[in-house]
Amino acid sequence: MSSGKRRVTIALIAEEAGVSVPTVSKVINGRPEVASETRQRVERLLHKHGYQRRTGQADGPVGLVDLVFAEIESPWAMELIRGAETVAREAEASVVISALHTHAGPGRDWVERIAARRTDGAILVSSRLTARQHGQLAARSIPFVVVDPEGEPPPGVASVGATNWNGGLAATRHLLELGHHRIGMIGGPADMLCSRARVDGYRAALETAGIPVDPALIKYGDFLVGSGHAYGDELLALDSPPTAIFAGCDMQAFGVFEAARRRGLRVPEDLSVVGFDDLPLARSAWPPLTTVRQPLQEMAALAARMVLAISRSETPDTRRVELATDLLVRDSTAQPRI
Amino acid sequence: MSSGKRRVTIALIAEEAGVSVPTVSKVINGRPEVASETRQRVERLLHKHGYQRRTGQADGPVGLVDLVFAEIESPWAMELIRGAETVAREAEASVVISALHTHAGPGRDWVERIAARRTDGAILVSSRLTARQHGQLAARSIPFVVVDPEGEPPPGVASVGATNWNGGLAATRHLLELGHHRIGMIGGPADMLCSRARVDGYRAALETAGIPVDPALIKYGDFLVGSGHAYGDELLALDSPPTAIFAGCDMQAFGVFEAARRRGLRVPEDLSVVGFDDLPLARSAWPPLTTVRQPLQEMAALAARMVLAISRSETPDTRRVELATDLLVRDSTAQPRI
Repeated sequence: MSSGKRRVTIALIAEEAGVSVPTVSKVINGRPEVASETRQRVERLLHKHGYQRRTGQADGPVGLVDLVFAEIESPWAMELIRGAETVAREAEASVVISALHTHAGPGRDWVERIAARRTDGAILVSSRLTARQHGQLAARSIPFVVVDPEGEPPPGVASVGATNWNGGLAATRHLLELGHHRIGMIGGPADMLCSRARVDGYRAALETAGIPVDPALIKYGDFLVGSGHAYGDELLALDSPPTAIFAGCDMQAFGVFEAARRRGLRVPEDLSVVGFDDLPLARSAWPPLTTVRQPLQEMAALAARMVLAISRSETPDTRRVELATDLLVRDSTAQPRI
Repeated sequence: MSSGKRRVTIALIAEEAGVSVPTVSKVINGRPEVASETRQRVERLLHKHGYQRRTGQADGPVGLVDLVFAEIESPWAMELIRGAETVAREAEASVVISALHTHAGPGRDWVERIAARRTDGAILVSSRLTARQHGQLAARSIPFVVVDPEGEPPPGVASVGATNWNGGLAATRHLLELGHHRIGMIGGPADMLCSRARVDGYRAALETAGIPVDPALIKYGDFLVGSGHAYGDELLALDSPPTAIFAGCDMQAFGVFEAARRRGLRVPEDLSVVGFDDLPLARSAWPPLTTVRQPLQEMAALAARMVLAISRSETPDTRRVELATDLLVRDSTAQPRI
């Protein structure tokens, strides 16, 4: 029934691992009843020998695309879900949401959960893929694409992002052109590439304008409202506070709005604020938020198309894509008062 | 292999429908290659005879819970996703997101998509379930629970909601106690039960306070920012405008904030605003929004627990649940100026 090649390969792995053939099958199929140490040994061997699960025509598509988040907290995640869902539906598939909850206690690994039920492919959002997880996906022939990789993705891994560096540059240049010289920056986590690129764009804009970068004006938070509020407050409490703040995302910009208001500062008269993302709420914020639009829905839609193409054994046109960002000037930025 | 009972039942359906046994199987398994008319005839018979797909122990749980939205647009949906995901993960399952996109063109029905791949159960959010869809779910033994039913759910259907009427009453009484007499109401869609209940709570509060209900002060929009803005603007343009507005959801309340600001009115000095939901953004809005909290995450979590219980052939403790709402008084409400 199954091809000779497959049987030989599993048997080879079993022999080398010193376990039975059914044990190897259990590992491949994500069954829980294998000791952790054994499972890891088998997985290393599956990866080493480049074992590929046979996904015959008989199986056909499963009709599921996994969208895996580190945490689901911001309305930002909603935009990615909408983009992926639209493409999946066109392909008569549905989107499965998983959150890694890296801060929560241990549980059954998401890769094992996925392997136990099959998927057409996974989109990993802002996730750092460990070598072990990479091996687990490869051994089970689960195609995957990374959106906004947290670290540099391994060679050959498909990824979708936005032109974060250019966005950071455009946001900061806009503030410089208005006449601001002391510009604060609130970035996302320092170890996320998309966040670093925005901060580097900010630095590049200052340096090419001949303005020295003041480390006291750069903060790194998470991408939520609270860190915009807390770091906005710290920046505004400086002896020589900034006249403008570039926030690493819209949610942080809303937090900066709040910090400014609590100090009796008006936006944009007393403080200019620029965000990043262009969430649906940005235009109905008060004042409407000047922000760098990244096409979140399109990014997720592209990632879904790429992963579905790989699952059909097609080669996507490109494996690393950055979609363009756009500066949208609304009402939260103005000339400084002095 | 399969039980005689099952074979007989499918054969019976096939005979009565005048089709082959494989055709009936295809309908049950959601395969697309059956003519629409035939499929509907078979489904009617499956429903009539109370056919139940055998979900033997051998099958076991699939590890998927479907969360089906009419549209995915508001950050409100995010809260439901988070609640369902937490419970699903504890059960080593994942959440599948579907949007019906009722305004989009026709596509393969979501029930067929689900049937074609199996699920442990479905949570239907704000969705009107047609008799046909109800029959499709029943014929495939797919357990389901309705959250915030759009219409009255069919008898025996499990549902989870919030005490919307009480919430509407509490919001309006809070405004009355502050001294407001002209209170505007912006509801959600008039045909959604959760929305109607909030408006009825508003009416009840006015009537028990001896204040006649003025139909000119009641508007029905969708649950998005734009309708809050548009109807807030209409209410504020009245010859005798309201001094307070109760919005059917937080997003609409943010729209009312915008309408007030564009007219140069301050919240709460010139206009008090109350929302409904208590989205994470409500507390960082400016001013922080007085709102009726409905426990969205808990509602979705409970629905997920109920559907997983039904899928294990357990009987949930209750089949119709309304979780309590709470009025949270923040800074968007104050005494009227006059």
